[in-house]
Amino acid sequence: MAAAAEAVTEVDATNEEGEEEEQVVNPWEVSAGKGGIDYDKLVDQFGCQRLDDALVARVARLTARPPHRFLRRGLFFAHRDLNEILDLYEKGEKFYLYTGRGPSSEALHLGHLIPFMFTKYLQDAFKVPLVIQLTDDEKFLWKNLTVEETKRLARENAKDIIACGFDVERTFIFSDFNYVGGAFYENMVKVARCVTYNKVVGIFGFTPEDHIGKVSFPPVQAVPSFPSSFPHLFSGNDQLRCLIPCAIDQDPYFRMTRDVAPRIGYQKPSLIESRFFPALQGENTKMSASDPNSAIYVTDSAKEIKTKVNKYAFSGGRDSIELHRKLGANLDVDVPIKYLNFFLEDDNELEHIKKEYKEGRMLTGEVKQRLVAVLSELVARHQRARALVTEEMVDVFMAARPLPNMFG
Amino acid sequence: MAAAAEAVTEVDATNEEGEEEEQVVNPWEVSAGKGGIDYDKLVDQFGCQRLDDALVARVARLTARPPHRFLRRGLFFAHRDLNEILDLYEKGEKFYLYTGRGPSSEALHLGHLIPFMFTKYLQDAFKVPLVIQLTDDEKFLWKNLTVEETKRLARENAKDIIACGFDVERTFIFSDFNYVGGAFYENMVKVARCVTYNKVVGIFGFTPEDHIGKVSFPPVQAVPSFPSSFPHLFSGNDQLRCLIPCAIDQDPYFRMTRDVAPRIGYQKPSLIESRFFPALQGENTKMSASDPNSAIYVTDSAKEIKTKVNKYAFSGGRDSIELHRKLGANLDVDVPIKYLNFFLEDDNELEHIKKEYKEGRMLTGEVKQRLVAVLSELVARHQRARALVTEEMVDVFMAARPLPNMFG
Repeated sequence: MAAAAEAVTEVDATNEEGEEEEQVVNPWEVSAGKGGIDYDKLVDQFGCQRLDDALVARVARLTARPPHRFLRRGLFFAHRDLNEILDLYEKGEKFYLYTGRGPSSEALHLGHLIPFMFTKYLQDAFKVPLVIQLTDDEKFLWKNLTVEETKRLARENAKDIIACGFDVERTFIFSDFNYVGGAFYENMVKVARCVTYNKVVGIFGFTPEDHIGKVSFPPVQAVPSFPSSFPHLFSGNDQLRCLIPCAIDQDPYFRMTRDVAPRIGYQKPSLIESRFFPALQGENTKMSASDPNSAIYVTDSAKEIKTKVNKYAFSGGRDSIELHRKLGANLDVDVPIKYLNFFLEDDNELEHIKKEYKEGRMLTGEVKQRLVAVLSELVARHQRARALVTEEMVDVFMAARPLPNMFG
Repeated sequence: MAAAAEAVTEVDATNEEGEEEEQVVNPWEVSAGKGGIDYDKLVDQFGCQRLDDALVARVARLTARPPHRFLRRGLFFAHRDLNEILDLYEKGEKFYLYTGRGPSSEALHLGHLIPFMFTKYLQDAFKVPLVIQLTDDEKFLWKNLTVEETKRLARENAKDIIACGFDVERTFIFSDFNYVGGAFYENMVKVARCVTYNKVVGIFGFTPEDHIGKVSFPPVQAVPSFPSSFPHLFSGNDQLRCLIPCAIDQDPYFRMTRDVAPRIGYQKPSLIESRFFPALQGENTKMSASDPNSAIYVTDSAKEIKTKVNKYAFSGGRDSIELHRKLGANLDVDVPIKYLNFFLEDDNELEHIKKEYKEGRMLTGEVKQRLVAVLSELVARHQRARALVTEEMVDVFMAARPLPNMFG
């Protein structure tokens, strides 16, 4: 999976001729038009489905627990055939979850955590097995890294992923460099035979100057969607359905996968897709590894979080207190509110803050103070959990082992 | 490796406008111009080197045994950096051999045996380890076969290969579907990162309508050239040189491999390359699996061999005995002579037959009779050897095991 998942590149929304530019969303590029990503347009463009209130209510009913705040607040906003997964689940049939990460950096930022926090909720709520792919091969192909470095980063990232609280009895984490082979490789070759070069150019925008490693990669991300890629887990259960929680920039991979699946005798995976997590500087900027001030990292100290939020989080508040009291904040562009939307659990408190802030009674500083508290707690909790992750635990999660209690 | 290795497609050497057509030689197509393949031109076009008498004499001296008839008779006629391998060998440094086969059919024909017979000679003469790749993945990608069928064919073909007499203490046979993974996959990805799509189009002639499985394949055939792809064999010996005996249609793969090798810190493989083995109907026709009369198969009975040679082997003899006695045979197009050139061990007898036949004293029937005897003995010997190959022997040859006596 690509690092762009939660990033929005800084673009001039109009080109030199003053025409409006198309938004571009694929695993390696997310360029918003003026006014940010148009998610409605993206749903239509990609041909996925909107995740509406009725579906969220159905998830709540079937799992007998309140929906995750990412669902309540429309942060996971689109899907493909989630209803089919739920129909089967209602009849007593299980499924498995598949998500992943491209290990291109040592420290994860908050955006990287979103799919894992949500996947953990899904695993707990549905009691289903989970496979997590670390695409170290992808990062080797796209970044100037050595194989050894990408493998090391995969292992370090696995620790942060494990710290999210996944159930070791239901979770298999693997890196491509360590796991590709056997049935997994057979499925890669089966997928590759069904996809023309023209097709991947259309989906991913490769050029003839791109190396063939890029052209070869999409099947690698496709095949964890098929249970037969994991014989130690799902042997004899080749029609088990798969649900993929991911950011919507990964949709191209799975459009391709869903197109191919029936042609090789497999079920199409279902998807549940999130919006992008914004950079501190606002929705039309990019969280960048080279600018540590563009994001909050899970390694940041409370002091760093406080400084970053206070100094860099783009505010929708007004230029003077007087003006703010009079006009109120512009919530559409306010990053602290967007972050609280992702991370403040209490719906009532969130609504209260938004109302007070919008109507000018609450100031940016007060909102930021609340955000600093929320993020500091989240990050401190993550750091405590990660400190407890041993090398032995990583070995266990990454062992290609049977999971006897995976549906337990 | 591709089945085209020993085949020449039937072509009209001039196109509709009457212009002379270019000869095309790549792993999937071998089209001769008028008058057959121009091997001299091929050497220049590919940029490989001619294997001259001095080099053959050097091989004989270094191995302290007469050169194989394929060498004596220029059937292996081209190379790349064979002299470097010999320089090092002379100083006491070993190397390893790599050859292979694309398992697309159950029964091998004589053309398929050529690289293996020659490789067995090299292994015996130099006392070096050998890896044999069965590209079942390639055949899945190029032919309308299932994965299971290509895996079955790989195993069946392995039996014929083992029957050629390879030393189990120095030989590792693997199929891609069974072996790709780990260090082998890492090397595939490293190679793929160094080769653009434009480049593979230039080398292999892929089109945008081709599936990406084809585009992904060249690195799979490239990486057995690198000892680090076989950690169980060559661990800690990543600079061990590799010599690849193959038909010259495989040269494009290894041109690509040699181009990439220094960029990823590896030695370039050396090559020793053969001419094509002709179909019974002559050099400008194709041995075809759908026409059993175009080739002698290792499964043919003595009676079938006799019938095929007598009925189908294209003769350079004249239309009447009188004319033949007067003009003699045209050896340039005579298939029995070409086959004897490959398979009759005795140089003196071969020269005698050629002289007598060319000068009209020997008739086609007599030459064919000698060929039938030679091939019947060869095929019978192969069949006896193959009957002794057990499933357990296949398992041993194909086990990814260390070879403690591989240089012994």
